[in-house]
Formats: sequence, C-alpha cells, structure tokens
Amino acid sequence: MKYTDIEITAESGLELLTNDEIARLSEHSQGGDHELFKKCVLAVLNSTQITDELDLYEEQLKYFDVEVLQLNKGVKLKLKNAPSSALVEGEMIQGLKEQVFSVLRDIVFLKQELESNSRIDFNTSNGCTNAIFHILRNAKALKPGIDPNIVVCWGGHAIPEFEYQYTKEVGYRLGLRGLDIITGCGIGAMKGPMKGALVGHSKQRKSNGRYIGITEPGIIAAESPNPIVNELIIMPDIEKRLETFVRLGHSFVVFPGGVGTAEEILYILGILLHPENKNSPFPLIFTGPKESSPYFERIDRFIGDTLGTEAQQKYKIIIDDPVAVAHAVQEGVYAVREYRKSTHDAFHFNWQLKIQWDFQEAFDPTHKNMSELNLNTNQPLHSLAANLRKAFSGIVAGNIKEKGISEVTKHGPYHINGDRNIMDQLDALLEAFVSQGRMKLNAADYVPCYRVLKPNKIEEHMPV
Amino acid sequence: MKYTDIEITAESGLELLTNDEIARLSEHSQGGDHELFKKCVLAVLNSTQITDELDLYEEQLKYFDVEVLQLNKGVKLKLKNAPSSALVEGEMIQGLKEQVFSVLRDIVFLKQELESNSRIDFNTSNGCTNAIFHILRNAKALKPGIDPNIVVCWGGHAIPEFEYQYTKEVGYRLGLRGLDIITGCGIGAMKGPMKGALVGHSKQRKSNGRYIGITEPGIIAAESPNPIVNELIIMPDIEKRLETFVRLGHSFVVFPGGVGTAEEILYILGILLHPENKNSPFPLIFTGPKESSPYFERIDRFIGDTLGTEAQQKYKIIIDDPVAVAHAVQEGVYAVREYRKSTHDAFHFNWQLKIQWDFQEAFDPTHKNMSELNLNTNQPLHSLAANLRKAFSGIVAGNIKEKGISEVTKHGPYHINGDRNIMDQLDALLEAFVSQGRMKLNAADYVPCYRVLKPNKIEEHMPV
Amino acid sequence: MKYTDIEITAESGLELLTNDEIARLSEHSQGGDHELFKKCVLAVLNSTQITDELDLYEEQLKYFDVEVLQLNKGVKLKLKNAPSSALVEGEMIQGLKEQVFSVLRDIVFLKQELESNSRIDFNTSNGCTNAIFHILRNAKALKPGIDPNIVVCWGGHAIPEFEYQYTKEVGYRLGLRGLDIITGCGIGAMKGPMKGALVGHSKQRKSNGRYIGITEPGIIAAESPNPIVNELIIMPDIEKRLETFVRLGHSFVVFPGGVGTAEEILYILGILLHPENKNSPFPLIFTGPKESSPYFERIDRFIGDTLGTEAQQKYKIIIDDPVAVAHAVQEGVYAVREYRKSTHDAFHFNWQLKIQWDFQEAFDPTHKNMSELNLNTNQPLHSLAANLRKAFSGIVAGNIKEKGISEVTKHGPYHINGDRNIMDQLDALLEAFVSQGRMKLNAADYVPCYRVLKPNKIEEHMPV
Amino acid sequence: MKYTDIEITAESGLELLTNDEIARLSEHSQGGDHELFKKCVLAVLNSTQITDELDLYEEQLKYFDVEVLQLNKGVKLKLKNAPSSALVEGEMIQGLKEQVFSVLRDIVFLKQELESNSRIDFNTSNGCTNAIFHILRNAKALKPGIDPNIVVCWGGHAIPEFEYQYTKEVGYRLGLRGLDIITGCGIGAMKGPMKGALVGHSKQRKSNGRYIGITEPGIIAAESPNPIVNELIIMPDIEKRLETFVRLGHSFVVFPGGVGTAEEILYILGILLHPENKNSPFPLIFTGPKESSPYFERIDRFIGDTLGTEAQQKYKIIIDDPVAVAHAVQEGVYAVREYRKSTHDAFHFNWQLKIQWDFQEAFDPTHKNMSELNLNTNQPLHSLAANLRKAFSGIVAGNIKEKGISEVTKHGPYHINGDRNIMDQLDALLEAFVSQGRMKLNAADYVPCYRVLKPNKIEEHMPV
Repeated sequence: MKYTDIEITAESGLELLTNDEIARLSEHSQGGDHELFKKCVLAVLNSTQITDELDLYEEQLKYFDVEVLQLNKGVKLKLKNAPSSALVEGEMIQGLKEQVFSVLRDIVFLKQELESNSRIDFNTSNGCTNAIFHILRNAKALKPGIDPNIVVCWGGHAIPEFEYQYTKEVGYRLGLRGLDIITGCGIGAMKGPMKGALVGHSKQRKSNGRYIGITEPGIIAAESPNPIVNELIIMPDIEKRLETFVRLGHSFVVFPGGVGTAEEILYILGILLHPENKNSPFPLIFTGPKESSPYFERIDRFIGDTLGTEAQQKYKIIIDDPVAVAHAVQEGVYAVREYRKSTHDAFHFNWQLKIQWDFQEAFDPTHKNMSELNLNTNQPLHSLAANLRKAFSGIVAGNIKEKGISEVTKHGPYHINGDRNIMDQLDALLEAFVSQGRMKLNAADYVPCYRVLKPNKIEEHMPV
Repeated sequence: MKYTDIEITAESGLELLTNDEIARLSEHSQGGDHELFKKCVLAVLNSTQITDELDLYEEQLKYFDVEVLQLNKGVKLKLKNAPSSALVEGEMIQGLKEQVFSVLRDIVFLKQELESNSRIDFNTSNGCTNAIFHILRNAKALKPGIDPNIVVCWGGHAIPEFEYQYTKEVGYRLGLRGLDIITGCGIGAMKGPMKGALVGHSKQRKSNGRYIGITEPGIIAAESPNPIVNELIIMPDIEKRLETFVRLGHSFVVFPGGVGTAEEILYILGILLHPENKNSPFPLIFTGPKESSPYFERIDRFIGDTLGTEAQQKYKIIIDDPVAVAHAVQEGVYAVREYRKSTHDAFHFNWQLKIQWDFQEAFDPTHKNMSELNLNTNQPLHSLAANLRKAFSGIVAGNIKEKGISEVTKHGPYHINGDRNIMDQLDALLEAFVSQGRMKLNAADYVPCYRVLKPNKIEEHMPV
Repeated sequence: MKYTDIEITAESGLELLTNDEIARLSEHSQGGDHELFKKCVLAVLNSTQITDELDLYEEQLKYFDVEVLQLNKGVKLKLKNAPSSALVEGEMIQGLKEQVFSVLRDIVFLKQELESNSRIDFNTSNGCTNAIFHILRNAKALKPGIDPNIVVCWGGHAIPEFEYQYTKEVGYRLGLRGLDIITGCGIGAMKGPMKGALVGHSKQRKSNGRYIGITEPGIIAAESPNPIVNELIIMPDIEKRLETFVRLGHSFVVFPGGVGTAEEILYILGILLHPENKNSPFPLIFTGPKESSPYFERIDRFIGDTLGTEAQQKYKIIIDDPVAVAHAVQEGVYAVREYRKSTHDAFHFNWQLKIQWDFQEAFDPTHKNMSELNLNTNQPLHSLAANLRKAFSGIVAGNIKEKGISEVTKHGPYHINGDRNIMDQLDALLEAFVSQGRMKLNAADYVPCYRVLKPNKIEEHMPV
Repeated sequence: MKYTDIEITAESGLELLTNDEIARLSEHSQGGDHELFKKCVLAVLNSTQITDELDLYEEQLKYFDVEVLQLNKGVKLKLKNAPSSALVEGEMIQGLKEQVFSVLRDIVFLKQELESNSRIDFNTSNGCTNAIFHILRNAKALKPGIDPNIVVCWGGHAIPEFEYQYTKEVGYRLGLRGLDIITGCGIGAMKGPMKGALVGHSKQRKSNGRYIGITEPGIIAAESPNPIVNELIIMPDIEKRLETFVRLGHSFVVFPGGVGTAEEILYILGILLHPENKNSPFPLIFTGPKESSPYFERIDRFIGDTLGTEAQQKYKIIIDDPVAVAHAVQEGVYAVREYRKSTHDAFHFNWQLKIQWDFQEAFDPTHKNMSELNLNTNQPLHSLAANLRKAFSGIVAGNIKEKGISEVTKHGPYHINGDRNIMDQLDALLEAFVSQGRMKLNAADYVPCYRVLKPNKIEEHMPV
C-alpha cells in the first residue's frame, strides 16, 4: 500500500469556518476534535480497502495527519500520508473529497455547535430527536417539498457474492422507480443497493439521486463509506444513527446480515411494538436470494419465539423477487405519504414515531452492562426487544468497534444471560451467524466475543 | 389601503423547523419571538409603501398577525390582514415571500441558536464578530470560491429624485462590471444602486446577481426592504449591521444622505483611523451628481475640522461621473483581492480588520447616554469618531426608530455637548441636513429630536 | 465616438460551423453573406446609440469589418473598428456578444440552410409559415411544454419620455405576472416593456425571463436591438417578422407609435377580419398614458372610417391603467390557452391562424408599387387592410430603411391614392404623426417621403 | 413476452415538428419515413432483450405501430403493442423515451432536411463529412468549449462474461478520469465501458457524463441501444457511422470482438495508413483480459501478414491492465489536444483527418460486390485495408443485417477471393471467430454466410 501527501479544498460551502473553529479542529489534545477528525478522515480515505480488521488502520493512524488552513477562497486541508488509493492521476476522487468535508462539517457542528447549545439536551428523549433534526438540517439532508421516496436498506457488510448481487438487483429496481437509498454506508448490503440504484437512476435520467450514508465515529473505520455515497452524515453513536434511519426513511428493506442486522431488526421491532406506534404505517420487508431463505427463516423463528406473533406481523418476507420487493416498497411509500398527509406530519422527518428513551440512550458495551441486561420475559415486549437490541449492539462492538474490541481483549468475552428459552434462541442464532461467516469479513478465524449463559447450566459455563 | 388573509409556503429549506422552534415562534408573550417575527414580517410586506412614518405601521400591527403551521412539505405561514399591495393576482410576490422566510430564518437562528450557544458571547469583541460570521453562514451569505466583488452602497433613504437617478446610474455601471450590491435595503440610495445593477447584470447575462440587504429589527419598519433585495439578512442592532457591511464588502460607495449616512461615514473612518488598520486597502468613494457637490464639500469640511487630514485621506470624492466611480470601485476590489491573497485572509469575510469594542457594543440612545458622549478633542481620533458615530446614531433613533422616538416623545430632544468647535461643526452639518430635507421623507414638518449645546453658551440654552 | 478592435468567442453552440459555412460568411462579393453579416453585426454593436439616421452607420461601415476564424473550441470573430461603447473595461458586453452570435446563427441558417432546402418554398403561403417555424426552431425560440405566456408589445421607437415611462410601467405589471415580452427590439416602446418586465421578473425571482426581439436586416441598423433582448431573431423581411409576432405571441399590446405601429395595427386587423379567423381568441389592447388618449382616438376613428365597426370590435382601448392592461393581457392569455387546448393546437406556435398570401409576400416599396396600391372600398375589408398595411410599410421604408430612402432620394416622395374618404383619413392620420413628432427620432426636420393624392383634387396636386 | 399500448411526450424540444413533418412521419408507403421510424423505435424499446436473432423482431413488427400526434405542448407518440419490458410501473423508462425521440429527431433531420438540401451531396467525400457534421450539430452532440475527452470503445456484442467484466473495469477507470464514452451502443463491449464509466463518473460526481451511442437503421434491430446511452445518434449507414466515431473521438480502445470489430480495425488502419494522416496523433489501444490474449495475437498476426509492420505500429496492445489502458488513453487525449491546438483544428470535430472516398461510399453487400473485391497485394496498403474492411462489412451484413441475411438466404454464402496468402490469413481469422463463438450471440448453430476461396484450390472449392 502506498501513501502520499495531498492538499484539498472544497467548493460547496463546507469550508467556511471561523478561525476559532479551525483552531479547535487543530487541537491535538487527546480526545479533542482533532483526533476525532483525523480518524474519520482516514476512514473515508480507506474506502477502497475491504477489510474490517482495525490493525492496518491503527498502523496508518501513526503516520497519517490532517491540517486545517484558512485560505482566500475557503478552508484547505493538508493531508499527510493519505492512502494513494484515494487518488486518481494525482487528484483525490471528488466523492471522497466531498465526504472528507462532510466529516468536517459534522464534527464542527456536533462538537462545537450542538454541544454548546443549551437548548439541546442529549439526556432527554426530546433532546435527542431535536439534535438529530439539527444535524440533518445542518447537513442539508432534509429536503422540503418532496414526496416520500427514501428507502432504508439494512444488511451485513460481510455477505457472500450472490447476496451482494441480489442487493444490487433490488437497488436497480428501486432506482428504476426513482427511489433514493439510505444505508449504513459500508460495503456489502450497504453498497449493493446504491450501486444498483445508480444504474436505475441513470436509465431514468435522474441525475439527483441520493445515496445517503449514515455512520458514526465508532464504526467508520471498520465500515468505510463507499464512494458512491453522495451524502455522508456522521451521527454521535449507534443509537442516534438508528434513530436517524427511522426518522428519515419512508420504507425499509432488510437484507441478510450478521449481528448488526439483528440489532437493526430488534431496534425497529421494539419501536413498532410500542402501543403508540400501532397505527403508523411502516413498510418493512426482509428479502434475499433463494439460497438465503434459511437465513430469514432462522430470524423469523427467533422473533416468533422471543417476541411472538405480534412482532412477526410487523414485517413481510419476500424471497428471490427484486421486482416484487421494489413494488412493495413503492406501495409502502405511498401508504406513508397518505398517512402523513392525513396526520399533517412532515414528509422529511417522522416526528410522530414514538421512540422510547431505552432506544435512544447510548449503550456502553462494558462487561457489567452486558451481563446485567434483562433478557427475561418478565417485561413488555418492546422492553425485551430493547434489551435484545443492546445485546446485539454489544456484540457488534466486541467484533469491530475500537472500544468493544479493547474491552474484550482486556476482560475476555461478554457474558449474556437470561431466560433459558431466550438464551437458547440467541445461542442458535449467533451460532448460525458464525457458521455462515456473517460475523466478520475474515470469517474463518472468528473467535466469539461473547458467551451465552443458560440458566440451568450456569455453573459449568461460569468463567473462573 | 386594502388588507387580505393569505397562506404561504417556501421551497428553499427555510421552512424546516422543529416543533419546538415553531412553538417559540408562536409564543405570544410580550418581547417573545412571536412579536418580533410579526413586526418584521409586516415591515417586509409594507415594502411597496413609501413612508418612514411609523403611525400607519403601528395601526396595521393591531390587526396583522402571522401563524406558523407544520405542513407535510415544510412550514406554512398564515398571514392575517396582510397589505394587499404585497400580492399580484392573488399570489404573494415571490421576492417578498422569500424575504418573509429570511426573517423567519434569522429570527429563529438569532434567538434560538445563537442566544443559547455558550460559545458565542455578544459581550466580547471576538464574540460579536463570530456571531456575525455565524449569522451570515447560516444565511448562506458567505460564498466560498468567489473573487471579491461586493460593493457596499451607503446613502440616504430620503433623497431627491435626481440623486436617486444618479445612484441608479452608478449601480448600472457597477452591474455592467459584474459587481454585486449590498445596502441597508430600504429605498432611496439603498434601492437605486440595486435597480441599476439589475439592468447591468441583465445586459451581462449575469443571472445570479446578488442584491443583499442588511437590516435590523429597529429600523425595518421605517425602511422596509425593497423587493429587489434577494438576500435579506436581519442583524440584531445597528452596530452588528455596520460591522456586517465592512466584513462582507470589498469596496464602498457613499451617496448623499442624512444622519444615517453620517453615522456610516464616522463609523468607517473611526475604524480606518485605528493604527492596526493602517495598511489594509479599503476603497471608499463619496459620490453624487453635480448638484450634490455642496453636500460632500460640507461633509468633507466637517471631517477635516473634527478628525483632520488623516481622516480625509481615507476617501476619494468623485462628482458626477458614474463610469469613473465604477472604474475606481473595480480597481479597489482588485487591490483588496491582491492584499487578501498576500495575507492569506478569506475573500468572503474580512477577518483582519480591527474593530474596537467601542464600535461593536450596542449604543442605547437614552438621554443620559447621549448627553454623556465625549465629543471633545482630548482623545485619539478613532475614539472621537466612535463617539461622533454614536451621536449620529442617537439622532437616527430619535428620527425613525421606535425606541428613540418614544424616548424623545417622553423626555424632549436629546442634548449633545462637547468642544465648541466640534459643536459648531456638528450644528452646521445637522442644520444643512434639515434644510436640505435629508432628515425624513416627510421633510417639511421636521422637528429636530436633538439640541446641540455649545460650551460658552451653555447657560442660555440649558433646558430648565 | 471611439472604435476598437476586439476578438470574441461564444460558449453556446452557435459557434459550431463547418469550414464551408465559414468560407461563405467570409465571401466578400457584393450581396454575399459577408456583407449582410457585417451590417447586422455593426447594427448590434451600435445598440447604445440612439439615432435612426443612417449616415453615421454608413460611415462606420466603411471602416468596420468582421472576420470569422475556426478555433479549437469553436468559432472566433475578429472585429475591426467596433464601437467602443459595446465594451466595458475592455470586454464586450455579454448581451451584445450573444446577439452577435444570434446574427451569425440566423444568417447561416437562413442563407445556407433554408435557401438550399428544396422543401421550403418562400413563394407559397404554407412555405412561408414553415420557414418561420424552421427559423424559430433553429433559434430555440419555440419552447415546448410551457403554458402560453408571451406578450407582443408594439409601438413606436420615437416616443416622448412620458410614453416611454408608461411602457415601462406596463412591462413591470406584465413581469410581475410572470409574462414574457416580445417586441421589435429597438428603443422606445420596444425597450420600455422589457425594462419594466425585467424588474417585475426580478421581484418574482423569475430568472429565465424572455425578452425576445424580432428584427430584419432592413431595419436593424435604424432600430438596433437593445441589450436587454436575450433572444434576438432575424427574419428575412417585415412580412415574415410580422407573421412571427402573431404566430409566437399569445396576447398583444399596442402602445403609441408612428407609421410602423400603424402598419402593425393594419396587419393584425386585416388578419383578424378574415372569415376563417373569426372565432379564434386574439387579445389585442391599445394603451397609453392619459396624455396619449387623443392618439388612440385618432387611430380608432381612422379604423372606424376605413374598416368599420367590425374591425373596431377586434381591440380594446385602455387608457392610463397599467394594472388593468396587465390583468386584461393575462385573461387573454388564459383564453388563448383554453382555446388551443380545445382545438389541439400547439401552445408554442399558432398554426391555426389563417394568414393570406397578401400579408406574407414581401412588398417592394417602389414608386410603381406604392402608386398602384388599391386603396378603394371595392374589396373585402381584409384586402383593404392588407393594402393599407402596404402603404404604411412603404412609408416606414421611405423613412428609415436603406432601400426606401434611396428610392425616395432618387424619385421623390411616394404617391398614394385611392377613395377620397380613405385618402382624407390617411392624410389626417399621417399629419397627426408628423405634428406629434412620431415619424423619426429627429422629428423637427421631418420631410415627408409620401404624398397623399385625393381623387377630386387630382389635377392641382399632380406632380409635373 | 408482454405487450402494451402507451402514449409518450418529450420535454426537450425534440417534439417540435411542423405539420408537414408529422405528415411525412405518418406516411405508410413502403420505404417511407414511417416504416423506418417504426422499425427504429421498436428496436429501441427492445433494448432489454438480448438476442441478435431478427425473427422475434420481425414478428413484433407485424403488430407494433407508432402514431405521431400534434399536442398543445409538443408532439405525442402513440405506441401500439410496445414491449412491456420498456415500462416500469406503467411508465416508460425515461432513457428509452429520450432515445425514441432521438430516433425521431434524426430521421426527421436526415430524411427531410438533409436530403432536401442542395448543398449537401452524399456522393462526394466532402459532402459526406459535412453531412455528418450537420447531423451531429443538429443532435447537439458537438460541444464547444470543451477539452478533448471522448473515448471510442469498439468490440463485440457477443463476448463471454469475463471479457464483459473487463470492459466494465476499463470503463470504470476511464470514468474515474472524467472521460466520456462513445460506442456502437449495443450490448457486450458496447455496454460494459458505459456501465463502468457510470460508476467512475458517479464517484467523481460528474453528473453530465456522456454515453454516446452511434447506430444505423441497418443494425439497430440486432444491436438495440442499451438504456445507459444518453445520446443516441442514428447515422444513415455503417460508413457514416464509422466516420462519426473517428471524427468525434479523441482516443480509441478496441476490445475483443468478431467480424464487426475486425471491420472497425481495418477501417481505422486503412485511414491511418494514408500518407496525409501520417503525423496526426491517433491513440489506438487493443486490450482484453489475460484469457483474451490469444485473440489479439491472432489479429496482430493477421495485420502483420496482410498490411505489414507499418500498420502494426499504429496501435498498442495492453493485456489485462485496465489502469494502464486508462492512463494511456488519457495521455493520448492530451497529445490530441496539443496537436489540435498547434494546428488550430477544432476539438469537437476532427476536420483534418483524411478519409478517402473508398471508406465513405456505402458498400452494398451483394454477391457480385463481395466477389469482385480486390483482395490482392497489387495496391497501396490503405486500399487493401479498405477492401478488407468491405469484406468484413459484408460478413457482418450476412450475419445480422436484414439486407445481408436476405441476400444470403436467396443466393447462398458470399464468395471472397484474392491472393492465396491473404485468403489463408482471412480464413484462419474467421475460423477463429467462429470457433470462439464471436460471430453471433447464439454461437452454437452458426452457419457461415461466406466462403473464402483460395486461388490454387479454386476448382475443388468452387460451388456448383
């Protein structure tokens, strides 16, 4: 791998900073804005790499740096030891350049504007939702005057080629219908729908197609945004990121994936199970190629066994039929439109959806928090879903997030325990993920970062 | 005059509000955002009226109201008893509609974002400048990547027709050179250059010409923005407004005017006289038609007599030659460009100019403050200029601003005193303004809101 | 007056010529394309001049030249001794540059494409109409998919200031309604409506306002296009030009003018009087300020006395009320839209209007042709109108067109004769034009280029 | 396969037709414009089909029809029995809609304008070149003011998957460099580079990427334009089509293909071998994946053996290295730019390249013409190349063009004869194409439409 020094400037207004803002972006104190900025920029530049191992990234970080300079026509970034793969014939790929400045925009806004705004309180439910709205408005991601047309695509980054081709095919069919795509912005099921939609949009001569990628500092290194993403937005953590999807999106497609995808599914089911959300139309489709049909059967069983049939009625499974998926998505979008019109809710932001504080509060994946999760049936379904969501969230962290990996390295695998039935289901599901190679890109060597404890076997499994 | 109810929506992103923001805009508490918003909106809608008398406006305010509603595609405003002159064939003029939403944008940003931001401190010099930058950035008034080309035009709103025609002619010549215009956004010398530039831009097929109007809540009612203004920005007070002009503009033209214009002149001279600004190029041209030549002779004499020749060297007077003015402005713009390049300062915001706190702090035109102004020679020139600026500012307030008028109504004319020589000059200048009808539109009945006290005559003039 | 050499290139596709086309544009043979091109280009560059005397122009032509060169990025024009007034700070005004290339486009198309096309026969009625469509399509002046909104404004170039201000005011009101303007593209009533509409469009933020100027080689020197014209189209002669107005326009406003305006009025009345056009809505409004009311009374009387009340019912006279005019125009435009929809006719071209060959054939203003015009009542009204139109056309030629002036210089004034009553009316009308200074810009010295002969006084008036 | 009736209108100006033009497009006489229009439209709508067998198409033609109607806002097309695959959710795919109107534009222009233009003589070399320029200008395919950046990609429509993936990869690398693509607009090597470039352009945020497809009525049915093509241009025949490529393109890439590709190679080599073209830079690269390396060795040997080393020096072979290809293409484009600048030739059209009449005249693939081709060494190299080109052209016709197929059906395979050595080479090359399945999509059943006669074996091979 080669590295190079390069200077870039932007043209879009993102480079208008006050001298104070520049100063803060340059503060080299540990945990300061500079460190965060630098890490995210490097992650963006790595986008052509396909690994979720963080070792190379950690190594690169030692040599990589970014300096912010005031220039006549805006701000200039001086990059040191940037991966050469981000350049073509000596020029940075325009898409990456724009993403770098999106990172700058969001970090400045998040760290400097939002955090110093006394009206925004991240410790309240309303405050979280407002903060997300502010971040999206600042990123110009809220487009007024446009009919609902945003499709959220969820699914794994570590999926086999035939599933990737399927996500492209579905994306193509969505693109032909003029629908825009929003994903978690990495590779696999996060890239395929965008690539497909790009071709669909091109055939429909839609030149303003949106390929929105929502990421977070904790995951951006492991799941670098793909360069098709033309609206990159960085949310503070996974909880805000998930809320962003459901407030922005109008229709939801879930492709096969691993624990991250399971987290997303539990998240949305937990919300939809809340009594206040009962009547709100929320198109949710699980889909994959024929060969992936066992995957969704497994998930469906898990949901049925843990959350029951009410939860199962919240989604529809369509196997091996991209046109049917696209058609269902579009019908869902129409239904959302009609509902919002009837309830006078905004098209550009789903204000009405009730999201409990449980789903908004940042879950810190410590061993203590993981082992104390209530995974028993003695609670409302939406609370159980919330806790299951956290369990999966912790495993994702343990797999590919800096913080989680370091915790697991220090203290060994997380312990998860609860009702025997739930634990059995969980264990089976996770083992299926492992055996199907859905945990990480480099699946062969996967060492689980968790241990599922089952009540009546508690002694034998207890770690010493 | 007729009134009508009408609903409007915008298309540009200004209508994306949180429910909290809408709630605050609707709070009817005295001094709340609603009152301010309503007043400014009415002022915008009155733009086709030509009066600076506030009586009619006060009367309209009793019946006029504006309600903010969340809508599917953005925010809708419901206006009650809006002046029908703002409509054409039942539709609001697009330019006014955009201005109404600019008002909304700035009030929301100013009152809700800036005021709750702990990083922005209006009580420090740096804080003021930063706040201005934030307001302008939020209003998208800072355009990166563009060579300097903004011309500030100052001058009176109450000027005779031949002077108005002259401002149009100069504007035309500026427009032919592709230069953009920024003014205080009322009528007279604030409208003429825009109208002229519009024709110049049209002949040059420049379709993105900028006609920027900077106003403040205190004056917007008396000097309604003209509808050519396609970027309306509302600053908190006259001091922030003046600083906006000098930070945004690249070349400055002063047409004949009254005390407001004198305030602007003293403001800029005071800044330029500061030692730190000595080397910064700052193109400043006073111009008018042949018949107005005595006006500038009078001003020039006043400056010479109070601030001396150093101050006189800061500007150039060009009489009756629009082409020469436009040519000099363009040369000035080039010089600014070269200087900013050599000093690596931004083109879009003049960060380097030193503006003392004296020129930034809001001056409250009470009788006490006015009478205590230090108008003696025992101080640096730039301080004297600062105080003279405040004196003129107070008189403008007493003439046409709500606050000042009510003060004067209660307590009688302001008293101004200082060195005999300065008082003589001031008296002469003000009398010239009165006799030339430059104080108010309705010049005939003008009753001075001030009394100039002269030291050795102090007893006889002293009010009882 | 100063002259300068300058090179210009265009950016819009007009500069894509074959080497053959360039060769022909450069052929210096008398009557070749080069001569015509050169004359028209000079006329465009003279647009800031205000004279309809051709002496200066003839003098300029001796020194002026234009060379066409092939360049990497298109075609370059090398202008020799161009009027410096066409330049600002060393660069040609963009609007003029575009007009120069419009001239190039139309001359190449007309002389090289149309004339060599065996399908287009200028000697048939259908051929003429088709040719006009082809010219307009090539000039991209036909905009599909747009609702009717084009207002034709007719009126004199030699009108007093208060009438000019009135045309601006009407244009402003039309512009506020989003209507586009098409005129003969000179000064006076051809410029005012455009200038007014420009301000109206600006307030409505309509940035794609159309200011279409239709001219012809025979008149372009005397009535240089004003630079606001952003679509300049050159038709072969006055008959094609008039047909262009009526095929393109959706509503018609006639301001005061001289014989040219009278020609336009007779032209349209003649067409509207044709039985086949009886049911077609054709909004036609005569308007002027209060002071011009006698003018329209005179015209109205002339029409009533020569063509009768049926002709008088074809138009509406509105005095001193720009808002009423604009409102009536807009209602007319709506009526046209409804009618075209009901009859499936194109919005962008009035295919259905019947125009007789009499109104299409080029009238050559020789003395013989003028004296042989049938101006008697022994013919259908539309034929009489056609002949009266020709009489006025001849007088315009004798006043300001190269060909006519040279005829009159050689053979003395044209003789016009016919029924006593018609001659009396004609004489009175023409005398009113003369006495009101409407014949030429330099009205004082006007020497009539015609003599109206009256039957029963024929001996005494007969020239020797 | 399903069929449906549908009506479409366009928005781009292509739908502005005179009533005469509509009438001609509707004339149902055999060989009239209607038949040609209908055939081409159907071919466009079939674009999602992948067969070069004409049987289905012939069958579809019996039921398919298209009617042209005048509408208020332009022209409407009424399609009867259109393939449903051209629709998504009941609406025609926008890209196909635009292509249908491109067909309309070119047929109207070609048949009605060009053919009736006495200045354009298709029977002269200069006339052909001018006609091509006129067609391209009318199609707005000539973009002034743009640096050279058009890459011609040639290669087969019947290529294996791994070669198709390779053409995509090369296209991606070209797209990352901002280069535009022009191909013969079918599938295979004509589609791959466009699809790749689309992704490259997207990452570079180039939203105005050009994917130009040049076709001809004779081949459009067999090689339907793919819907990514956003500029479809129809040339009268293969000779004009080939000339269009070389006049428009700035750099040339040849992928593996069959006889069509061989025709293209011989065409360009014949032109480059002409003494007058000796110094003109003409970047020409043959490339394919590793597995295709024998293919180019075979071609290279054929060229070496028939045209010699001079011909071999005109191209460069790059195997399995898309980045190297893209880099070489870009360097070639720069060289072309410098050369055109130095010789003052247009960027948008290669006027200077000498193309002999032999390469411009339409070759009619009758048995007589084929058998009389001079394929001996007794002639200049460029003439031999011209004749070899015709031989390949005839075989393409016999394979997939309506005319050729019907000839071969009637009279049996074409006879090709000439020098023994040339015949041996030709035979070997063609056999290689057959055995590699490059003759048609449905390769298994291929029956050769030709017979290569070899001099000294002439008796035994002679058909009875």
